[in-house]
Amino acid sequence: MSRLRFKISMSLDGFVAGPSQSVEDPIGVGGMRLHEWIFPLAAWRGAQGLEGGEHGPSNTVIEESIANIGSTIMGRNMFGGHPGPWDAKNPWDGWWGANPPFHHPVFVLTHHAREPLHLDGGTTFTFVTGGIEAALVQARKAAGGRDVSLAGGASAARQYLAAGVVDEMEINLVPLLLGGGERLFDGLGDDMHGLTLVRTIAAPAVTHLKFERH
Amino acid sequence: MSRLRFKISMSLDGFVAGPSQSVEDPIGVGGMRLHEWIFPLAAWRGAQGLEGGEHGPSNTVIEESIANIGSTIMGRNMFGGHPGPWDAKNPWDGWWGANPPFHHPVFVLTHHAREPLHLDGGTTFTFVTGGIEAALVQARKAAGGRDVSLAGGASAARQYLAAGVVDEMEINLVPLLLGGGERLFDGLGDDMHGLTLVRTIAAPAVTHLKFERH
Repeated sequence: MSRLRFKISMSLDGFVAGPSQSVEDPIGVGGMRLHEWIFPLAAWRGAQGLEGGEHGPSNTVIEESIANIGSTIMGRNMFGGHPGPWDAKNPWDGWWGANPPFHHPVFVLTHHAREPLHLDGGTTFTFVTGGIEAALVQARKAAGGRDVSLAGGASAARQYLAAGVVDEMEINLVPLLLGGGERLFDGLGDDMHGLTLVRTIAAPAVTHLKFERH
Repeated sequence: MSRLRFKISMSLDGFVAGPSQSVEDPIGVGGMRLHEWIFPLAAWRGAQGLEGGEHGPSNTVIEESIANIGSTIMGRNMFGGHPGPWDAKNPWDGWWGANPPFHHPVFVLTHHAREPLHLDGGTTFTFVTGGIEAALVQARKAAGGRDVSLAGGASAARQYLAAGVVDEMEINLVPLLLGGGERLFDGLGDDMHGLTLVRTIAAPAVTHLKFERH
């Protein structure tokens, strides 16, 4: 069965985005500090068409997280653009340009219907208004036996976590404070929704905490 | 120079105590779940006069944290008892009985003056009304060349962290959610107050994140 896999970078104080998120500053003030550990890695550079980079435990974690993914689910906030109905005259086609790095079907959770968007390199954005379960059914079918990546953002992730349908969660814990912003676990209560820590990998700039569903 | 060393157990969602702390439930609802990893360890059992127990990476961390400590600082909330002025008729002498496990001078931050309390086994509680700097000066002097342990709770720890005087911080990150309670880092802003991650030790039930002042 196709598994639903989620990974995210989180600060020591529990934030996955900084304060004051906006179209200009999609991960909030200081939010980029959560992602700096990934840029030197060979796996990340390779996905951008760049050569070289670091090979170490974090690189292995990234390679694993990319492997065997057949489709992606993301929230509207992560897809981006101004909130509310889609602007037909000035369409928002995502952050990733004409050839997004997904190269597989992507399902975007939204309250506003929109025709699918076919971009270069095999990436298709399908806009799902039927809620998280409908999106998961479609994403599993589209994955063709491979796994489904839950890309975020925090709100979409929380909904899937609360529903108890996340099979794997990798928290990349970054040893810094953001002091404000969006917390991943806000409102999720005091249980792990079926997830248990199964592996911890310590890298100098980040700790990878991998959870799996029992 | 005597160093100020702080260790605390924290949930994945950033809480160091559960909700609804009270005299009856000093670490809040569910707060004890943050400490269950420590009870099987040989170092913890030994400190309670018990034999046996586990020897592993977490045990080594606990042994380190106990070693070379000459005095302790704690907040009034951690010392316990009803808030406000001390009740002379019904004195509160701490949670630890007639022979507390410190066996060295302990300095309690409080707004309410009180005579020192001498208990068995070398533990003396001195009540400091002059604020965190005064307590640190007294604790360093009393430590006799050894280090000072900052025992908590969260409010006392935050004050010392904000002042930038903590030399070592060990976060024992427990892979569970409390969903509410007291957050260690609330109000500390977006910098680490001089602390940098220097060591990560992954144990199955807890991740030890050690920070030091540059």
